[in-house]
Amino acid sequence: MSSPKTSSNGAGQNGAGNGQNPLFSTQPFPGSRKVYVEGTRGVRVPMREISLTPTKSTNGGAPTPNQPVTVYDTSGPYTDPDATIDVRAGLAPLRRAWVLGRGDVQELPHVSSDYGRLRAADPKLDELRFGHIRKPLRAKPGRNVTQMHYARQGIVTPEMEFIAIRENQMREAAFDQAQGNGNGHRNGHGGGVLQHPGQAWGASIPSRITPEFVRDEVARGRAIIPSNINHPESEPMIIGRNFLVKINANIGNSAVASSIEEEVEKMVWSIRWGADTVMDLSTGKNIHETREWILRNSPVPIGTVPIYQALEKVGGKAEDLTWEIYRDTLIEQAEQGVDYFTIHAGVRLQYVPLTANRMTGIVSRGGSIHAKWCLAHHEENFAYTHFEEICEIMKAYDVAFSLGDGLRPGSIADANDAAQFAELETLGELTTVAWNHDVQVMIEGPGHVPMHMIQVNMEKQLAACREAPFYTLGPLTTDIAPGYDHITSGIGAAMIGWYGCAMLCYVTPKEHLGLPTKEDVKAGVITYKIAAHAADLAKGHPGAQARDNALSKARFEFRWEDQFHLSLDPDTAVAFHDATLPDNAAKVSHFCSMCGPHFCSMKITQDVRDYAAQKQLDEQQAIQIGMKEKSEEFKRTGSEIYL
Amino acid sequence: MSSPKTSSNGAGQNGAGNGQNPLFSTQPFPGSRKVYVEGTRGVRVPMREISLTPTKSTNGGAPTPNQPVTVYDTSGPYTDPDATIDVRAGLAPLRRAWVLGRGDVQELPHVSSDYGRLRAADPKLDELRFGHIRKPLRAKPGRNVTQMHYARQGIVTPEMEFIAIRENQMREAAFDQAQGNGNGHRNGHGGGVLQHPGQAWGASIPSRITPEFVRDEVARGRAIIPSNINHPESEPMIIGRNFLVKINANIGNSAVASSIEEEVEKMVWSIRWGADTVMDLSTGKNIHETREWILRNSPVPIGTVPIYQALEKVGGKAEDLTWEIYRDTLIEQAEQGVDYFTIHAGVRLQYVPLTANRMTGIVSRGGSIHAKWCLAHHEENFAYTHFEEICEIMKAYDVAFSLGDGLRPGSIADANDAAQFAELETLGELTTVAWNHDVQVMIEGPGHVPMHMIQVNMEKQLAACREAPFYTLGPLTTDIAPGYDHITSGIGAAMIGWYGCAMLCYVTPKEHLGLPTKEDVKAGVITYKIAAHAADLAKGHPGAQARDNALSKARFEFRWEDQFHLSLDPDTAVAFHDATLPDNAAKVSHFCSMCGPHFCSMKITQDVRDYAAQKQLDEQQAIQIGMKEKSEEFKRTGSEIYL
Repeated sequence: MSSPKTSSNGAGQNGAGNGQNPLFSTQPFPGSRKVYVEGTRGVRVPMREISLTPTKSTNGGAPTPNQPVTVYDTSGPYTDPDATIDVRAGLAPLRRAWVLGRGDVQELPHVSSDYGRLRAADPKLDELRFGHIRKPLRAKPGRNVTQMHYARQGIVTPEMEFIAIRENQMREAAFDQAQGNGNGHRNGHGGGVLQHPGQAWGASIPSRITPEFVRDEVARGRAIIPSNINHPESEPMIIGRNFLVKINANIGNSAVASSIEEEVEKMVWSIRWGADTVMDLSTGKNIHETREWILRNSPVPIGTVPIYQALEKVGGKAEDLTWEIYRDTLIEQAEQGVDYFTIHAGVRLQYVPLTANRMTGIVSRGGSIHAKWCLAHHEENFAYTHFEEICEIMKAYDVAFSLGDGLRPGSIADANDAAQFAELETLGELTTVAWNHDVQVMIEGPGHVPMHMIQVNMEKQLAACREAPFYTLGPLTTDIAPGYDHITSGIGAAMIGWYGCAMLCYVTPKEHLGLPTKEDVKAGVITYKIAAHAADLAKGHPGAQARDNALSKARFEFRWEDQFHLSLDPDTAVAFHDATLPDNAAKVSHFCSMCGPHFCSMKITQDVRDYAAQKQLDEQQAIQIGMKEKSEEFKRTGSEIYL
Repeated sequence: MSSPKTSSNGAGQNGAGNGQNPLFSTQPFPGSRKVYVEGTRGVRVPMREISLTPTKSTNGGAPTPNQPVTVYDTSGPYTDPDATIDVRAGLAPLRRAWVLGRGDVQELPHVSSDYGRLRAADPKLDELRFGHIRKPLRAKPGRNVTQMHYARQGIVTPEMEFIAIRENQMREAAFDQAQGNGNGHRNGHGGGVLQHPGQAWGASIPSRITPEFVRDEVARGRAIIPSNINHPESEPMIIGRNFLVKINANIGNSAVASSIEEEVEKMVWSIRWGADTVMDLSTGKNIHETREWILRNSPVPIGTVPIYQALEKVGGKAEDLTWEIYRDTLIEQAEQGVDYFTIHAGVRLQYVPLTANRMTGIVSRGGSIHAKWCLAHHEENFAYTHFEEICEIMKAYDVAFSLGDGLRPGSIADANDAAQFAELETLGELTTVAWNHDVQVMIEGPGHVPMHMIQVNMEKQLAACREAPFYTLGPLTTDIAPGYDHITSGIGAAMIGWYGCAMLCYVTPKEHLGLPTKEDVKAGVITYKIAAHAADLAKGHPGAQARDNALSKARFEFRWEDQFHLSLDPDTAVAFHDATLPDNAAKVSHFCSMCGPHFCSMKITQDVRDYAAQKQLDEQQAIQIGMKEKSEEFKRTGSEIYL
């Protein structure tokens, strides 16, 4: 990574490419192009480069160019006009050579799970089945193929280098830009970018991410790289509190049967807007086949909650579940390529009565299924008693644990109660067990928590789980706004992200009420991108402020198009602008619809700036003069300043 | 207030009343009725009572009734089917008798301002003019009619008693309910309501608000009651950090001329959803007449920024402004009944150069107008030099200061800079001056601030302004999401509300892009109600959790209609539910669309509860057993727990 090169696929605003899949969102972002930064291990890291127009001179001089802004890009090949998107063929398996190259995996003649074989042999499913299913890979006997295992051996994998390049987001280029733009009054705690020093609550974020740093964080369990060897289509990403805060979007069909195409499109749609991982929470029909389609077309890691499918296999009767059915489901999904499993192994029999007098009992679906099974059999949770065997499966495919918070609070009233924290302690114990197997672990968290009780969740999690990454659902900070729970939870998500949460699971406006539409998915993703980015800014993540600075500068200079292009959601920004001032001329006008030409405060500020320039005051002088005068005023008048 | 009585105007869900104004939103809320709590000083405090259906027994017994939930109601007579709404006549002047009863005001023969007289005499405006303009009131010579003045004399006004009853929200009734619902495991730090103890950052919130407490807080300047003697239609409310967090909505016509009816309807619409005050920021034509219509029909305090209108009077040329024109505008608006004025007296000449090298200069419209004037004349801001004279005007009508933050940051980059904090110090000095006149003061604040830099804003404001209430715009916690700035700022608003901010000025999705529509106004208000309520919960405001508890209980018990009725926005909640399960039967079904009948975790929790009941475990036993077993397990296995 000593000298990353970039190659680009020029896009422009009319990404005519990919027209072959009108259902899928393959339009490149306006004003942006896909660039690839090359590393030394054959890695080629995609990013989105937003080009900016020059700043006009106020005194008739030549315009000053504005350097492009490079941003983290989760959208995969779908926004690359040079990529051929064919959902029936799936994405290119970019990691396959790396996986095979390590020499520790074997190709199986057929899938190992009973259920997988059943589905593969069923001719009625031919119509539904993805057409190019690869033979599954599994670790050779006695081998461990997890990124954590490699990291602990001191091996820097291509995945790790990919991540290091990706997390840096071409920060060096941003630094060059910052040096040139004359706004040098902020301390450079942002890895070169002008930004405020952060408050990172004990996180240790270096100004530049190196492959070695990635390796070290994975080795100590402080970050995970969800990267099943059977999901070679995924572009490596990392979840850990010393990296950019990530977000997850949930999709999945349900009783109301949505089609396979719809589910794949929901995945493509959510990564377009910034989802770093996607969980397939399907509970309806043909979920095995749906999952295959999603995995083969997903450039982001896919997570699942295998107990959902296991329950389907026993006709929805929790008491009929067995370890064997669950185990077969884990293997079935691991061989398809699921990158992380939510496993509710912390729902122990003895904790179940702790929930009896709660306001809202057990609200985790997985948690309640395990709880019901425990009660019906009066036995310990099989996911707990068989946890070592689960670790053996995980390390044969490099599936990461997402240890589920089956007893998370479902209401403000139940926040931070005995059941929740008892389970968290158990999740900490299980983390140690998994780490003994070199299996990657993250920990799921609440849920519903008022603002002042959020930080203790983070603190307890870090202590109990020895800094394993935290992955929370919101939390919602109040229960009184169904229909707006992306917002009630976005507040809590931003805060817990700041405190150290590594990944935020989105909540859509439909939470508690109905099934999210495409627009709801987008609202959830954008809200959570806001939360994650606000957290990065507050932590002082190096370079995080670059995009804010560029957008603010564009706003101040009435570069409307640049402002739109730099937005998280350019489509909405331009639509809102055009709703008031649809004329194209308004996009270059030096005022805006809120104030009109007379009231434009930014225009007046330019006069102020000109005035200061006339007076030949540079910024330092201005501050000194201002503060000196003020100081003299204070001295002269004392507390009786105004008479 | 020893035994408040309630009277009600039965509403039901079909508020057919008020059909005479189809333009205005006069529909009562579903499942709710308007109730009035009577005090001892002739006050009659409106509240909204949400009735709930009973909880069904799970073992065939009789259903258990759920007590109604009473909530703070900003919507005024518009949601009272017994009230006659006639926008041409205006609302009943409920405070007029109290104002006149104090014997310290005189009725003027005509308006005092030159501009007001000009408008009154212009026959071309007859069409536009409100038809029942009262003669203005003003303090008798030498008298001071501010609530702060009365408070400092030890007088408890009817306004103060009204507020005490209003802030308590019938909490005693809620307490009775909480005692009966069997969820007695939470400490009653919530003034009787079961809720978590809060973290109030030094606020001193009593469990019960008394009229004497209101008086004391106003006397010491820690809270204000915006209540111009010429706005007798307003229902008294209070802004201070020991009371419920309030929100403000901005309306106002602009270059794009909206009609007077539209502006009045925007006011009615924003108070329907919960705006505690409304600022009329009109900058277009006929703003004098528009303001009259708004005031005569507004049950909430109205704020303005008089410099906007003053600038209109000089054709938009800041340099042509004079103290005399500004003064005349203050008097004009004070005699119409504006309850608080944003006055940018802290934008001092010496601070202007501090903004020259900012990323986004001066973004406050008022601030930039004053700055331009200062530069053009190279003179000190006339609002600063004439501040004592402004106080004389304020106390003659009881207009409260909202000391404007003309130098607030307009971007993350500019947050907490020298210009911002220099102005804040001056606002602190001016607070002292105003208090010397017994004039009420609140302080405006930012703006754009990353999360970790928010709390210092609150701390500095409390110190510099001696606990005068803080009133902030957001702050936005990132600049990268135009189109979603209600959310970027809702995060900051919730946090600063928690830290002690008394009122939150809303931001709509159109911020920075265009003029808000009715739907944008609603999105802004609801987002800010969420922020304010999340802050109340985090502060541990007594009783704040009652609504969350009731909604969560309804959710758990599948009382769908109750859940909708308890929502901040019942219309959206029911629409979202119906989008997935439109059948009316689904509103009584014991599962929901997300999970279907098999997966319903809440249904399974009922099984858990039944199990715990069978085992005759009460909650305490359950906790003891759970913790004891766990403890023994720990002891037995040590750190090697899982083998």
